[in-house]
Amino acid sequence: TVDGDRLWDSLDQMAQIGPGIAGGCNRQTLTDADAEGRSLFQRWCEEAGMTMGIDRMGSMFMRHEGAEPDLDPVYIGSHLDTQPTGGRYDGVLGVLAGLEVIRSIRDLGIRTRRPVVVTNWTNEEGARFAPAMLASGVFAGVLTEDYANSRQDADGKRFGDELDRIGWRGTEAPGDRKIHAMFELHIEQGPILEAEGKQIGVVTHGQGLWWLQVTLTGKDAHTGSTPMAMRVNAGLGMARIIEAVHRIAMDHQPDAVGAVGQANLFPNSRNVIPGKAVFCIDFRSPDLEKLTSMRSRLEAEAAEIAAELGLGIEIEPVGHFDPVTFDPDLVGKVRGAAERLGYSHMDIVSGAGHDACWIAKVAPTVMIMCPCEGGLSHNEAEAITPDWARAGCDVLLHAVLDAAEI
Amino acid sequence: TVDGDRLWDSLDQMAQIGPGIAGGCNRQTLTDADAEGRSLFQRWCEEAGMTMGIDRMGSMFMRHEGAEPDLDPVYIGSHLDTQPTGGRYDGVLGVLAGLEVIRSIRDLGIRTRRPVVVTNWTNEEGARFAPAMLASGVFAGVLTEDYANSRQDADGKRFGDELDRIGWRGTEAPGDRKIHAMFELHIEQGPILEAEGKQIGVVTHGQGLWWLQVTLTGKDAHTGSTPMAMRVNAGLGMARIIEAVHRIAMDHQPDAVGAVGQANLFPNSRNVIPGKAVFCIDFRSPDLEKLTSMRSRLEAEAAEIAAELGLGIEIEPVGHFDPVTFDPDLVGKVRGAAERLGYSHMDIVSGAGHDACWIAKVAPTVMIMCPCEGGLSHNEAEAITPDWARAGCDVLLHAVLDAAEI
Ligand SMILES: NC(=O)NCCC(=O)O
Ligand SMILES: NC(=O)NCCC(=O)O
Repeated sequence: TVDGDRLWDSLDQMAQIGPGIAGGCNRQTLTDADAEGRSLFQRWCEEAGMTMGIDRMGSMFMRHEGAEPDLDPVYIGSHLDTQPTGGRYDGVLGVLAGLEVIRSIRDLGIRTRRPVVVTNWTNEEGARFAPAMLASGVFAGVLTEDYANSRQDADGKRFGDELDRIGWRGTEAPGDRKIHAMFELHIEQGPILEAEGKQIGVVTHGQGLWWLQVTLTGKDAHTGSTPMAMRVNAGLGMARIIEAVHRIAMDHQPDAVGAVGQANLFPNSRNVIPGKAVFCIDFRSPDLEKLTSMRSRLEAEAAEIAAELGLGIEIEPVGHFDPVTFDPDLVGKVRGAAERLGYSHMDIVSGAGHDACWIAKVAPTVMIMCPCEGGLSHNEAEAITPDWARAGCDVLLHAVLDAAEI
Repeated sequence: TVDGDRLWDSLDQMAQIGPGIAGGCNRQTLTDADAEGRSLFQRWCEEAGMTMGIDRMGSMFMRHEGAEPDLDPVYIGSHLDTQPTGGRYDGVLGVLAGLEVIRSIRDLGIRTRRPVVVTNWTNEEGARFAPAMLASGVFAGVLTEDYANSRQDADGKRFGDELDRIGWRGTEAPGDRKIHAMFELHIEQGPILEAEGKQIGVVTHGQGLWWLQVTLTGKDAHTGSTPMAMRVNAGLGMARIIEAVHRIAMDHQPDAVGAVGQANLFPNSRNVIPGKAVFCIDFRSPDLEKLTSMRSRLEAEAAEIAAELGLGIEIEPVGHFDPVTFDPDLVGKVRGAAERLGYSHMDIVSGAGHDACWIAKVAPTVMIMCPCEGGLSHNEAEAITPDWARAGCDVLLHAVLDAAEI
């Protein structure tokens, strides 16, 4: 089994980099704090005898050699970037548990036949640059490098320029790696495992997603002297569409969610009727039909709302993946490991998107989940117990050893 | 009569300072551009033989001596600050028309018995620091200096610190001036004069206003993995309150308006259910009963909406004035001047708030309005014709000469 204290200590040290304002983290992708976190991870890996590869998206591949170097490696991966007001464990657990697996293998004097590669995927969160899971999407061939490099943050800075700026662009072509199997350990970010009292979630599926960015165009005008009938109020249109998103998600219960997390009015002045509103809708479902239906209903209702208010409307998809089915053989390995180790477990569907969802397109892939307190994530108060972290990492170790062949 | 070309040229020169991105202006209060605009205005005034006083709020009082310096002066005033995407005429016309009145008086060799003081009131717009009409509110004794100095912009910068930074804090105590009469020429910022084909609006009343800043507190959580029933979505609450503002204003027709111009979600990330929303409601009416009724209905409905969604709610008034009745005697002088000069005119109610609305509390005050194209203001496309500007300035000149006694 793994060294739970060592894992917990590494999680704590990483959380000191890009600290939040309420105990969590703000280590957004391609910031100086991201660069610092990467360097710390690199140093730890090199101390554990691993060697580094970096691709042109900045994804880090830390390789621990196998007895038979020519065999396709087993991958363990997740991400070190966080939300602007993010938790300490979302993503980070999956990367540092990978490191702990290697440290444990070495402590135990185990030699795997296959190499094991621990990966830090760039820009999983999509908070600074939409879409989420950008580098793993390029790796899987779903998104192009040009598209990724051109993505802009709120200040108009481009992904490609920021990657160069922090000095973490590699030379390796994204996707130019053979993967025997890929494992991602992640906190659930939802309430189910804790409510059911299970230590381990065996992830069989992942939800699909649509991110729809809406731009409404009205007419800036004075809030005092413009009669109600003359207003073309983009903020009012936004309010009606946010309500529609909620209603549409409720009409698709169960197994569907929808919300608007990001919204900006322009010019955003108290006494100016907003001439423009830009906001992003997030719809998800494990059921492709529901996912498609929510999108098309929204498009129809939003067009009606805009027409009624005289607003221009554009809807741009800025993120998308279909529901995912993980590899049944690897799912069996995870379930078997939990069983052998005596951890309580249940099958679960991932509510969030993960790098594993893209890698599943190009290689056998599976996820392992551990509970998080109150199901809370994307919140600085995100919390897990050291026992949950250790149990998840133990199952990861055993499933990886199974796949990497000892 | 005034020199319309000279006035138009001065308006054009001032618009070069803090230019907008679409032909208008971004000369927000207490920015470097504001300082530059003030210096240009000071130079022009001094070239016209005027002397400067500045009060502790940074309001500029440019005095043209009268034959009897001990008589209470006649004031002409408005503001040189603009919205972030503002027009060239909102406020600026009233200040530069005041300067043109003095230039014309000198050209014509007229000597007024009373001094005439042209005023640039600090922070009329309230775009950077709420509330609007801040310095005239302090001058009128409605707001305190401490309150004004403590107001913060979106970056947390304080009004007082920014006033010191640009070097425009004077030593004079705000309000420490006797005013015989105060005139403000302003563009209508609404569609009525143009629609009625009138050159001059004789402003008899001004609308009252409530700015209500609402803070909703929910819980940041993941947009994918948080079940609908567990969400405490501050963005959804905001959407419902924006809709309520609209409905309440419509229910109070005619003579009532309402909208939300400024709104911010936190942390404003695509995959985070907003844990906080802060936005500002703008309700106005010339009818005090309607104004009060809109506020109390909103407070009741917003509390219900928040309770239904499990949100915390705080409502802070950040701007307020009651409906204003301007001085009947000065109203008569303005109407008489328009009549004598042969300009078409009508009585009108000001839809926007103006410095004159506060000064009316402490001195006989009146406003003159000229049309603006399409009623558009708080928009870079705000436009007036040189003829409208000249006509408004002519009426101002004649009404001021009437009050300043020649
Ligand atoms: N796990 C996680 O929060 N990923 C970010 C992408 C998403 O919004 O699901
Ligand atoms: N005139 C003008 O736009 N003043 C700003 C204050 C208001 O919102 O009415």
